[in-house]
Amino acid sequence: MQIAFLLFDDVNALDAVGAYEVLSNLPRAEVVWVAAERGPKRAVRGLNLIATHVLGEVPRPDVVVVPGGFGERAAGQDPAVLSWLRQVHETASWTVSVCTGALLLGRAGLLQGKRATTYWLALPELASYGAEAVSERWVIDGRICTSAGVSAGIDMSLALAARIAGETVAQAVQLGIEYDPRPPFSAGSPAGAGPEIVSLVRARYAARRAGL
Amino acid sequence: MQIAFLLFDDVNALDAVGAYEVLSNLPRAEVVWVAAERGPKRAVRGLNLIATHVLGEVPRPDVVVVPGGFGERAAGQDPAVLSWLRQVHETASWTVSVCTGALLLGRAGLLQGKRATTYWLALPELASYGAEAVSERWVIDGRICTSAGVSAGIDMSLALAARIAGETVAQAVQLGIEYDPRPPFSAGSPAGAGPEIVSLVRARYAARRAGL
Repeated sequence: MQIAFLLFDDVNALDAVGAYEVLSNLPRAEVVWVAAERGPKRAVRGLNLIATHVLGEVPRPDVVVVPGGFGERAAGQDPAVLSWLRQVHETASWTVSVCTGALLLGRAGLLQGKRATTYWLALPELASYGAEAVSERWVIDGRICTSAGVSAGIDMSLALAARIAGETVAQAVQLGIEYDPRPPFSAGSPAGAGPEIVSLVRARYAARRAGL
Repeated sequence: MQIAFLLFDDVNALDAVGAYEVLSNLPRAEVVWVAAERGPKRAVRGLNLIATHVLGEVPRPDVVVVPGGFGERAAGQDPAVLSWLRQVHETASWTVSVCTGALLLGRAGLLQGKRATTYWLALPELASYGAEAVSERWVIDGRICTSAGVSAGIDMSLALAARIAGETVAQAVQLGIEYDPRPPFSAGSPAGAGPEIVSLVRARYAARRAGL
């Protein structure tokens, strides 16, 4: 089972690595890291992850995972990336996004009429690509599986792991990564965070989206 | 505020990246990725993360983060790594571990008489380094902050973020990464997973520790 993770500069490292830590644990999983060009990709705030494959070398992955991050906009302006996403989706068992990775699927035209989700601040943009954008932790519609922001890739990947390999395997992976979350605050959703924190995060997101 | 992440081959990627996604978001954070030798380090199951600095180039980080993974054993046999850990701990505001990274702190002699935690299957080994090994999501004892396995680095880092930068900042980071966890199963702890899953994971861990 080949699992292809798309990389690009300004990817969110945790979007990719949360899903990776779950899905790479599945039986017979072979993970490849794919980008338009081989080599290091600089994640948001500087960690370098290495893309070992270029797009043309991975024509038929069983699972394709598209992480988010502010770099998705530039990646979505590369026709080679969009055409690769359309091509691999034809034969993939699962086409998966984390966070604003869903916007890339949208730009590729894969979410027309589909229920899908994304980072809470990107839901309006997701709807602009013809998706039925819903606020859920993850959404499965046919062969497309999308998740909410960043850390949601872990929850979504465990649900997907159960679909792919059964609940016993998924639960063993969950215990393997000791995923018994105990956040010290309840600020992980807009409702839990309250208006002051929401304003802070919204302003920072808008500034980054505007390229400031 | 310089935050140094230690890297080595066979590190758990999520141990490092969960903490990174939180701590790198703090005001004035400058993150460096440090290893005995510069260059790509192959995480467990194959993702390559790049170490941009060697140990001697990072003599006085404000925060040092030690991730786990099966490679901690080999890393802990390198006297240069252990002496770097002892040296940076002298002046660091926080010395932090995720998962079996605590065993490296133990090998360096930093946990003698300290309350500390680690991956659930590594608690007995942690105690062998003179720590009071406790089963908690994270433990703060003086300037040393240790967490349970893999995903626990996210919870611990949010708690640490609040100590470093205040609760408003920590909560904004939590909303920024939409950390509102909804695991599809309750298998993240031995008690929640039940005996069948515990046996599976225990056997796999023992085989990996034995180098099989």
